[in-house]
Amino acid sequence: MTDNLTGDLYTALCDIPLIDPHSHIDPYAPVSRSLDDILNYHYYTELAHSAGMSQAPLGKDVPPRERVRAIIGHMGRFDNTTQYSWFLEIARTFLGFTGDRLTAADADGLFDAAERVFNQPDWEKQVFEKTKLESIFLTNEFDELLTDFDTKKYVPCLRTDSLVFHLDKPRIRERLAEATGIDVVDAQTLRKATWKLFARFKAKGAKACAISLPPDFTPLHIPDAEFDRALHAVAKDSPIAKAVFGGVQFARIVTGTSSPQDATPQAAAAMGVFWTLAEHCREFELPFDLMIGVNRRVYENGVYQGQDLFDQRTSLHQYKALFNAFPEVTFPVSVLTSGQNQELVAYSWIFPNVLPNGHWWYSNVPAYIRPDLTERLQAVPKTKLIGYYSDAYKLEFVLPKYNMYRRTLAGVLADEFVRPGRFTETEAVGLGKRLLRDNVREIFKV
Amino acid sequence: MTDNLTGDLYTALCDIPLIDPHSHIDPYAPVSRSLDDILNYHYYTELAHSAGMSQAPLGKDVPPRERVRAIIGHMGRFDNTTQYSWFLEIARTFLGFTGDRLTAADADGLFDAAERVFNQPDWEKQVFEKTKLESIFLTNEFDELLTDFDTKKYVPCLRTDSLVFHLDKPRIRERLAEATGIDVVDAQTLRKATWKLFARFKAKGAKACAISLPPDFTPLHIPDAEFDRALHAVAKDSPIAKAVFGGVQFARIVTGTSSPQDATPQAAAAMGVFWTLAEHCREFELPFDLMIGVNRRVYENGVYQGQDLFDQRTSLHQYKALFNAFPEVTFPVSVLTSGQNQELVAYSWIFPNVLPNGHWWYSNVPAYIRPDLTERLQAVPKTKLIGYYSDAYKLEFVLPKYNMYRRTLAGVLADEFVRPGRFTETEAVGLGKRLLRDNVREIFKV
Amino acid sequence: MTDNLTGDLYTALCDIPLIDPHSHIDPYAPVSRSLDDILNYHYYTELAHSAGMSQAPLGKDVPPRERVRAIIGHMGRFDNTTQYSWFLEIARTFLGFTGDRLTAADADGLFDAAERVFNQPDWEKQVFEKTKLESIFLTNEFDELLTDFDTKKYVPCLRTDSLVFHLDKPRIRERLAEATGIDVVDAQTLRKATWKLFARFKAKGAKACAISLPPDFTPLHIPDAEFDRALHAVAKDSPIAKAVFGGVQFARIVTGTSSPQDATPQAAAAMGVFWTLAEHCREFELPFDLMIGVNRRVYENGVYQGQDLFDQRTSLHQYKALFNAFPEVTFPVSVLTSGQNQELVAYSWIFPNVLPNGHWWYSNVPAYIRPDLTERLQAVPKTKLIGYYSDAYKLEFVLPKYNMYRRTLAGVLADEFVRPGRFTETEAVGLGKRLLRDNVREIFKV
Repeated sequence: MTDNLTGDLYTALCDIPLIDPHSHIDPYAPVSRSLDDILNYHYYTELAHSAGMSQAPLGKDVPPRERVRAIIGHMGRFDNTTQYSWFLEIARTFLGFTGDRLTAADADGLFDAAERVFNQPDWEKQVFEKTKLESIFLTNEFDELLTDFDTKKYVPCLRTDSLVFHLDKPRIRERLAEATGIDVVDAQTLRKATWKLFARFKAKGAKACAISLPPDFTPLHIPDAEFDRALHAVAKDSPIAKAVFGGVQFARIVTGTSSPQDATPQAAAAMGVFWTLAEHCREFELPFDLMIGVNRRVYENGVYQGQDLFDQRTSLHQYKALFNAFPEVTFPVSVLTSGQNQELVAYSWIFPNVLPNGHWWYSNVPAYIRPDLTERLQAVPKTKLIGYYSDAYKLEFVLPKYNMYRRTLAGVLADEFVRPGRFTETEAVGLGKRLLRDNVREIFKV
Repeated sequence: MTDNLTGDLYTALCDIPLIDPHSHIDPYAPVSRSLDDILNYHYYTELAHSAGMSQAPLGKDVPPRERVRAIIGHMGRFDNTTQYSWFLEIARTFLGFTGDRLTAADADGLFDAAERVFNQPDWEKQVFEKTKLESIFLTNEFDELLTDFDTKKYVPCLRTDSLVFHLDKPRIRERLAEATGIDVVDAQTLRKATWKLFARFKAKGAKACAISLPPDFTPLHIPDAEFDRALHAVAKDSPIAKAVFGGVQFARIVTGTSSPQDATPQAAAAMGVFWTLAEHCREFELPFDLMIGVNRRVYENGVYQGQDLFDQRTSLHQYKALFNAFPEVTFPVSVLTSGQNQELVAYSWIFPNVLPNGHWWYSNVPAYIRPDLTERLQAVPKTKLIGYYSDAYKLEFVLPKYNMYRRTLAGVLADEFVRPGRFTETEAVGLGKRLLRDNVREIFKV
Repeated sequence: MTDNLTGDLYTALCDIPLIDPHSHIDPYAPVSRSLDDILNYHYYTELAHSAGMSQAPLGKDVPPRERVRAIIGHMGRFDNTTQYSWFLEIARTFLGFTGDRLTAADADGLFDAAERVFNQPDWEKQVFEKTKLESIFLTNEFDELLTDFDTKKYVPCLRTDSLVFHLDKPRIRERLAEATGIDVVDAQTLRKATWKLFARFKAKGAKACAISLPPDFTPLHIPDAEFDRALHAVAKDSPIAKAVFGGVQFARIVTGTSSPQDATPQAAAAMGVFWTLAEHCREFELPFDLMIGVNRRVYENGVYQGQDLFDQRTSLHQYKALFNAFPEVTFPVSVLTSGQNQELVAYSWIFPNVLPNGHWWYSNVPAYIRPDLTERLQAVPKTKLIGYYSDAYKLEFVLPKYNMYRRTLAGVLADEFVRPGRFTETEAVGLGKRLLRDNVREIFKV
């Protein structure tokens, strides 16, 4: 750390056991088996590809060791990035790396070290301990079984993107029918089927419903007759329906529509399903995580999970009807861009049911976290701030990502609270604990 | 302060007598009578409500002491905020509070102290002196009398939201007729009636005309024939007219319109009235304060004055026609979001008649003031920068709000001007005085 | 500098010879002849005018000395700005000025000093040496001859605004015909004529094609039949065509259009020409500099080159089709506002062919450069970052503008890389060299 006070605060923050409220961990394979599992994380494949690496090393048939060599071989082109820092910290913390900089020459040594370390029988337990991790939220498709793992440790969370945005795809409707025994053909069957999903998830200990949304999605309530018609049309799966259902056109239609009557069947169905999920959240007392702002498949030839971007022209004003209609539902909101942070601050300051949630994706580097966090701490009640989530695919990432956040948080607490004499060090750590742990427990009832 | 230089600059800035160019002070009741007057300020009711307080304590029949207990009882949930800091400073400066943190246990003591202090016969004078306040601008409805107070101290300012946006309401048209003796039925009568208002305000020492505008308002000039038709229609007060005249629908119609002919009568009338006011500002040589960006009643069940938010998708480009058409009118512009600050900087850099004005509402915390102010100081002529206004409802708020601003200003002057050797300390204080006082005097001709 | 580390880094960065990848230098008159050449730079005429100077001193018949007096006479009103600092640095570095502040009293002395200094026979050489400038890119109209100057030192660059946005003007079509011997009447002749331009520029050592674009331009591919029709219509030069071809209307049409079929002929022609230029960039292996976000002639009565502004509501999402269609073309992208920087960071992080390029125009002050640069350094591969360009009209400006950038860069390297222990000082200087020089060489193949 750059000064003693910040260093002391950081150390104190690192002692607080973590509850990580959003990740993509597979509870059946939570830790890495090889260095390939780490470097296959899309942040690295994206940056290596963006910096000039072809996609050849990412092919399924390429041996993991060669892929690792290729990606580390390109790291010299992006060793300035925060993402590189996470990997360096993983190498140091978990793999015994002692150097200051990673080069192509380190690839084989690290690969071998990872083979040894990651395959220890108690590796998962070790990672939990080193990370001081208590529990971590998952992202579960609606038809996942949620059996054979400890749901206190790996907390289920119902992810609903496919229900809202892909119900026009036959495979999604089939899966929904298999999972619930209900063929969705109209509003009533849709409501029954999704209600069953909520009941099952709730019984399994789910603590949230979640969805990611394109920048121009505008949820509106749809009368049942209209919703029926939309679902009938969607179920027909016509080519035209498909054509307007992905990306730009879909978005444009939804945004430009003042009443659902003018929307395409797909857009109307999306709105109706979304609204129904909010109703279930109310009934089942589950927070509804909204992750707002992602356009899918913008870079069409991007690496796996490296194709999504955004359009800064979006507003929480689009969610006015939703936030007003569901005062009983808690909406932890993630925004994709720092430019939306002031809206998130203001909407959270005014709406009791809107809460700022973490620092998502393209905003998950200190250059954005620092100002966004400072703004939230100056204007939103501290009991409403969910500080951070890892968004991790493998447990090894929780530590370096949270450390980045804790360093930034320590700096903000030092500069904005302790140095101006507003808080004592102890009070500042207490505020940090609220953001890192207490609020997660209270808001998600963990 | 966190360092000596900043501390010295802050002290010097605090010596400069203030002219506060925008507030909501009631000149007949400028100071608080009880702590309830302080805590009823919407910032506190909003934050308490947003942090979980029901609206029951805000009822008219609730005794003030109980309301104060309820709000202070919730402060522990938002003692991280800047707004809390203002209140703590009020408690310390005016009420003899000596603690570091306010808790529910302090409510009764503070309430009693406020009863004693605020009811001293010379309290208003004391607040003026402690605040080093010379004069403060008001926000006056068009039919206020402006008599029986010292208009040198409480400077009248004609607020015009109701004329522009609510002329379709019978009560507004009646009040306008009562105030002017003119029934507004067309462009000519509208022009006459509003001219009379300007003449009366000018005679009473008014120094500005002001309005707050939704994010998608786009002022355009309307030919008289069209303006006539719009006013005829508006005067009919049809239900349809009302339906499109508040909030979203209105805004959408105005924005999407390339020519006024396509607008609804209400939108066309709003544009016509607005343009007429700008013409009067030219004739009466009054600056026209534009406060750009607020959507009214977004959180429908919010506390009083705690329902308004915004849509970041707005641009000063919408004001191109206005700024070009009225080179003789000075437009002090406030924007609601930090995201609009770069436009405000650039438009002020280019247009002689556009000036950045203070830090409004959701941008009125140091996390936004600091970058916004730094940007303005680096790229806009210093003679055009109106540093700050309190927006206060009671005089006791002027001091803590200006102190927050002066602390931030001192920090920027230290880091951007004195430390890099660009300005001496004396020169930096001179620059601060420009922003705090000289420009207000020159621009508003006080 | 405010601390030793930053000072040391700054000194080291100043030793790196510069290749300036974008300017408006006239290779036949690269240096100033009088102080009037310096102060006629639109930044000064804009700020003086914005601060209250009439446009009378800018008239062609006004003697240069008087114009200089007028502008320096108004500098006291904007001596807080970064632009003033550039001029002060020019006066100190090149004209022997030793004071701390410029006043009207300095005008004549500086004017005389400039006469002496600027008219030395080797002045151009001296400026190159003092600036450690190796070469500088030009901005050339398509029909410039590119003869009689050293194209290694003054690197040609094909500017294409007039081809894309003004082909409806007879004079532009005539000039194109004169330059290529081809009358453009349809897609095929347009393709041939512009191909000839590329061939000539490439032969003369051009290293880039460049264009500035309005905030709502959305490039789409147009089928040839459609392009033919658009060019036929444009060639007719009808008054209606002109009416929709400048500013707002044009922009609105382009943006609101989901398919080129709905566009006006002018908008369709612009899209078609633009796409053709991208095809030529691919064939001739030239980077295509996109400078995104400027609205021309917003302040209609502004000073020369001081009429342009922007609309923050713009998105790189508008360029999705282009970036996907031309993976072989490198697009160095400049954005006009700091608000667009996160998109630029994210699109550069994901798309291999998108690169952040400098800090343009209204974002070219430290208050914007600092956060924008920090964000880029934390999330974009370092090999893709083109740090800065001067945008200079006269060579004397390269030094103070690059110094401003180097000071900011030194601060970011110190605070984000050296102090947290991520980079050694030497490594940090190496990173700075990448941004200042290495990447320019590699990306533009200098």
